[in-house]
Amino acid sequence: MSSESFATTPEPPYYAVIFASQRTDADPLGYYEASDRMIELAAQQPGFLGVESARGADGFGITVSYWESEAAIHAWKHNAEHTEVRKRGRLEWYEHFELRVAKVERAFAGPRADR
Amino acid sequence: MSSESFATTPEPPYYAVIFASQRTDADPLGYYEASDRMIELAAQQPGFLGVESARGADGFGITVSYWESEAAIHAWKHNAEHTEVRKRGRLEWYEHFELRVAKVERAFAGPRADR
Repeated sequence: MSSESFATTPEPPYYAVIFASQRTDADPLGYYEASDRMIELAAQQPGFLGVESARGADGFGITVSYWESEAAIHAWKHNAEHTEVRKRGRLEWYEHFELRVAKVERAFAGPRADR
Repeated sequence: MSSESFATTPEPPYYAVIFASQRTDADPLGYYEASDRMIELAAQQPGFLGVESARGADGFGITVSYWESEAAIHAWKHNAEHTEVRKRGRLEWYEHFELRVAKVERAFAGPRADR
């Protein structure tokens, strides 16, 4: 169950897009539908490696998507449907966000040795 | 209020430690106390830039801490109190975690132009 929350990523290097956001109270159904759709759409993009996401009851959330390359991130940014949805996010769903693009240099998992 | 959830970071480059974790049901009070203490302690470390954290009702969470350099991350890893608390995390608090160290290359904020 919970293992679906983790992204299964290859050995570094690869890229991470760290998206921290504070939700407004507006349009929760529209937001959830769009959020699910964006994950579905991202997963179809070349170079998509996975995504991890958490949001607390206070509406503050972090979504990290993982990508093979900067070029894959660039292509996803310019996807037409994604671009439309980002506009709605800016206007309706997010009070504030911080987006950071980072190159993952090393990684490990725990607490079990077999993963 | 919500703006306290965001880390105020300098212009890139800097480093991010992306910690995704699934909590067990064990010892919630001990976990919260240790979590607060670790943030307090991290904030005293040289090279600490900030932290962002979110956890959903399902116990899956993401914490991203930001650091000036790899050396600052290394020093924090080897902090004695932090090392002790990480052992408790592996034994008691986390069903699984994924930790990734990444170099932040670019960043921007929204939706307002004044931030």
